[in-house]
Amino acid sequence: MTDRDTRHRRAMQKLKFHVDERVASASEQRGQLLIFTGNGKGKTTAAWGTVTRALGYGYRVGVVQFIKGTWECGERERLIDDANLDVAIMGTGFTWETQNRDADTRACQTVWCEARRLLADPNVYLVVLDEITYMLKFGYLDIDEVLEALASRPAEQTVIVTGRNAHRRLLDIADTISEMQEVRHAFNDGLQARRGIDY
Amino acid sequence: MTDRDTRHRRAMQKLKFHVDERVASASEQRGQLLIFTGNGKGKTTAAWGTVTRALGYGYRVGVVQFIKGTWECGERERLIDDANLDVAIMGTGFTWETQNRDADTRACQTVWCEARRLLADPNVYLVVLDEITYMLKFGYLDIDEVLEALASRPAEQTVIVTGRNAHRRLLDIADTISEMQEVRHAFNDGLQARRGIDY
Repeated sequence: MTDRDTRHRRAMQKLKFHVDERVASASEQRGQLLIFTGNGKGKTTAAWGTVTRALGYGYRVGVVQFIKGTWECGERERLIDDANLDVAIMGTGFTWETQNRDADTRACQTVWCEARRLLADPNVYLVVLDEITYMLKFGYLDIDEVLEALASRPAEQTVIVTGRNAHRRLLDIADTISEMQEVRHAFNDGLQARRGIDY
Repeated sequence: MTDRDTRHRRAMQKLKFHVDERVASASEQRGQLLIFTGNGKGKTTAAWGTVTRALGYGYRVGVVQFIKGTWECGERERLIDDANLDVAIMGTGFTWETQNRDADTRACQTVWCEARRLLADPNVYLVVLDEITYMLKFGYLDIDEVLEALASRPAEQTVIVTGRNAHRRLLDIADTISEMQEVRHAFNDGLQARRGIDY
């Protein structure tokens, strides 16, 4: 064996030891609260990746889209025929397009009722609250009401929250938080959003 | 109109102005190189979300999995019947399980041939090189060869690279980089990885 091989083998053994140790110490099984936040690309996309994954095992999934209502959405189109997938969409589209606080609040409350129904259903394994952070930020939704619905959900249900500037009290109760940080974004260099990639 | 409504309207108008301005200044259309890196959750998941999205429009997609070969993978199971999806998997599983540098290098080179075929095919709209960063880090793959294959790919083809510690020269040529930062991870608090959510 060469020196390089020996070094490599030793490094891998060390890594394996640490991974095995972490796996052994993880013992609890229950639904989780995951938050994908930050200003970078990949928050909603990672949520849809998880939706695809859960559907792959035949679990029931609910997705509530609080903002992207009027956009084309390839991932929704790809999966929408799946009998295990429920999608609820807030009808008004981007809030800076409508600029009508009352109409947006009503639309948000309507879709939030759908979210509450999903969060109360023990047959739903995964619920995605896509871009709900903006609803809280704009005051369309009450944080106490959201926390209450999350706290009383079925123990086996996982929830994914996406959006920038997640509320401090949501972060406090999350099991996992990933912050997608924008290191570089093609949009800033004059590249147009691309069909099938960006939307 | 109340003061609050007026303030809201003004803030939304300002936001709309900036968004519209950015949309107007983006003029170029071509395939992109996206990198999802960092130590947080969501890199591979965001790649699969994009795969689902592209398939939703009927585009052809190739996924090359450089590490997760032996894992269960719900998202792959969900989409594998799609005639527009090609998946190539490196057979040896996690490299710290095998601890055999020669075998890993051979397995990596075999799956890299599949990647090169996809990167040369103008009918493939999206190619995912999942966890290829580790192959470069361990020296199983040559960075110059990878850069060459990326540079000479069809102009309309988008490539997603995932994995921690992306090579500096890959970052240099990326159009978009998102760094998934681990703010908190359930695994560290004793929660087991969860079927349909984590894998």
